[in-house]
Amino acid sequence: MATKQKIEEGLEFIPQFDDNGLIPVVAQDAETSQVLMVGYMNRAALDLTIRTGCATYFSRARQKLWKKGEESGHVQKVQQILVDCDQDCIVLKVTVDAGQCHVGYQSCFYRALKKGSNKQLQFIAEKVYNPKEVYKK
Amino acid sequence: MATKQKIEEGLEFIPQFDDNGLIPVVAQDAETSQVLMVGYMNRAALDLTIRTGCATYFSRARQKLWKKGEESGHVQKVQQILVDCDQDCIVLKVTVDAGQCHVGYQSCFYRALKKGSNKQLQFIAEKVYNPKEVYKK
Repeated sequence: MATKQKIEEGLEFIPQFDDNGLIPVVAQDAETSQVLMVGYMNRAALDLTIRTGCATYFSRARQKLWKKGEESGHVQKVQQILVDCDQDCIVLKVTVDAGQCHVGYQSCFYRALKKGSNKQLQFIAEKVYNPKEVYKK
Repeated sequence: MATKQKIEEGLEFIPQFDDNGLIPVVAQDAETSQVLMVGYMNRAALDLTIRTGCATYFSRARQKLWKKGEESGHVQKVQQILVDCDQDCIVLKVTVDAGQCHVGYQSCFYRALKKGSNKQLQFIAEKVYNPKEVYKK
């Protein structure tokens, strides 16, 4: 068991997976710094991401590995992998083409809460591709 | 139960808390776009954050609400609240002073995996304050 000191101040990468064997991962555009999505990785997904340089996540809904873009072609090429103080969260700096979100937007974060409301969202982005054309069943 | 269509394309804020009643939250510097930290909120923390304009999280370790900066003074003033496509993750755009991480760095993400290694980290930032002076027990 790694000590708090070793985890926080050390130079050994000791990712702390949760009880389900997962760690949350923030994908951030390396050029614009926009947060594109948040996903999860298990050990195998993280190893694949490091080895291949393409972001691979673990789908909690489908309980399997998914290489981002395997269907849409919108892969994330990893430029840098950051880890936080307690090593239980990762930031991936990635370069992307367009349309990282399956709904059709560049980022999954295409809505913001309206000022003064706790219930009402507003769109802050426009779709950059048509998901119906990309995700053909 | 909200439909997928309503959650993804609608304008109603319907945050999807997990089985533990939590939702992950990425705090991003509104000016520099640096990712500062990732924390969790329960319903009460989210309501407090919206109402007060200062980020309040739920500490999983201590199982209680904590207003970021309540001890250190390093509060996060919320400029914008973004939600992702499936509304199970939030990005807070915040303005901060300095030293958002309890270890002494501006961001919790002060280390990166070395290129070509799956084990070796390197520091990518310098401390901006001395935590021993700020966190007096």
